[in-house]
Amino acid sequence: MIISIVGLGLIGGSMAIDLKRRGFADRVIGVENDPVGAAAALKIGLADELTSLEDAVDRGDIIVLAVPVDTATRMLSQVLDRISGDKIVIDTCSTKGAIVRAVKYHPKRRHYVATHPMAGTEYSGPWAAEPNLFAGRACIFANVEESDPKALATIEHMYDVLNMRPIYMDADSHDVHVAYVSHISHVTSFALALTVLDKERDEKHIFDLASGGFSSTVRLAKSNADMWVPILTQNRDNVLRVIDTYLEKMTAFRKAIDDFDADKVRELIGEANRIKKILR
Amino acid sequence: MIISIVGLGLIGGSMAIDLKRRGFADRVIGVENDPVGAAAALKIGLADELTSLEDAVDRGDIIVLAVPVDTATRMLSQVLDRISGDKIVIDTCSTKGAIVRAVKYHPKRRHYVATHPMAGTEYSGPWAAEPNLFAGRACIFANVEESDPKALATIEHMYDVLNMRPIYMDADSHDVHVAYVSHISHVTSFALALTVLDKERDEKHIFDLASGGFSSTVRLAKSNADMWVPILTQNRDNVLRVIDTYLEKMTAFRKAIDDFDADKVRELIGEANRIKKILR
Repeated sequence: MIISIVGLGLIGGSMAIDLKRRGFADRVIGVENDPVGAAAALKIGLADELTSLEDAVDRGDIIVLAVPVDTATRMLSQVLDRISGDKIVIDTCSTKGAIVRAVKYHPKRRHYVATHPMAGTEYSGPWAAEPNLFAGRACIFANVEESDPKALATIEHMYDVLNMRPIYMDADSHDVHVAYVSHISHVTSFALALTVLDKERDEKHIFDLASGGFSSTVRLAKSNADMWVPILTQNRDNVLRVIDTYLEKMTAFRKAIDDFDADKVRELIGEANRIKKILR
Repeated sequence: MIISIVGLGLIGGSMAIDLKRRGFADRVIGVENDPVGAAAALKIGLADELTSLEDAVDRGDIIVLAVPVDTATRMLSQVLDRISGDKIVIDTCSTKGAIVRAVKYHPKRRHYVATHPMAGTEYSGPWAAEPNLFAGRACIFANVEESDPKALATIEHMYDVLNMRPIYMDADSHDVHVAYVSHISHVTSFALALTVLDKERDEKHIFDLASGGFSSTVRLAKSNADMWVPILTQNRDNVLRVIDTYLEKMTAFRKAIDDFDADKVRELIGEANRIKKILR
């Protein structure tokens, strides 16, 4: 099978590595618009060759759109327009509502499978790609009833080769859930980095004193703007609702500390500790 | 040398392991008030024996107070009252202002060295103790001019055995810095856990969908209330100032998303990305 991957960054590049290595892909064709990224992807060996989007669509059996969600949403209709036979198109984006709506009435909609492999690191670009990135993680399949069952089965098999756990939900539920378990984490990390960088003028002190705890909570603040601006604006309504709840919780914490109310601080920490039962 | 460790939790227990293993301690005497913790500490082998606080003070060459900061602040005067000869007392607490002020005029103040080994995990108790916990991390020494130089040198050597990097500062500066690089991270994690637990009623979904990013930002929300209530209330003024800056940054983020202002979101993420230059 020939896999065409549009965007050889963290996600596309990591897919390329494992799909080739595990024999699912006989050939990986890459499309990478950034010239530095393209040169690096070839040098690292993520793809067998790089080509234009059109050529990759014409030659690939599966076309993977692993680009920021605004680009993918724009690109998907064009790619569906161009395909023939039983080619399959998938995206790997972190929001699903807008992209699924954009092609709802496209005549070749059933060739498209909407997926979100929930794996990643705070790094981006072909140099961030790594083997086994997806192992054990969840892959969400959205609105599967709109896809051709044979196309869906092929993509389920592909993610199984990547050792992902499939989860099925409608695109709108997906966008609500990821606002809670992914998008808000990025917003809180960005805000934390901004806070510390604003006040702790002496960068040496940040470096010297940063404990493991700070490093892990601020880690996501290294995340790439090209990826995250479209996610946060596309999932605006859900993200705003989560931020509002978050601001309420933070304000309750602030008030308890301000009031020297040790019992209330203890109660809030005790409630937060319930996360231990869910995530070990 | 006999080391008496009061509190065989994550910090005290981890110190016990490495100080014994590396030959700095000939014998480790432990004090642990929690009966389950005490039984576990003995079974795990963190201390050679457990005894009362008084006996541990009378027999130890170095007495380490590795208990929550309110307990340590209360205990320190009593322990200094009781010691004789050239015994040394240290604490390992995450706030330094209040404890240093509490014994400023104690006649045996010079036997006390105020330290904060900046290492840890989100776990607590003797079962959380691990070898090498401190390696490569910073250890803050506060108000060293108030300690006897010989006592200080002994404690510097002890932390060197733990492979920690010494950093010297006054207690009040310490409390400002740790509010930024440690305490706020815990508050943001607690608030994040509360947000997700409040809205995401279906715990299975949290577990299934939690990506590495969410797990790392929410990790500190597992932290122990007995340790963190005293820290946040003792360091109240600094913590409140940091929370206020944090709320400002979060509100700016919220407004940019609300306004569909992609340029502003991009600018904020770009600023936050500067943390990459400091923490790789």
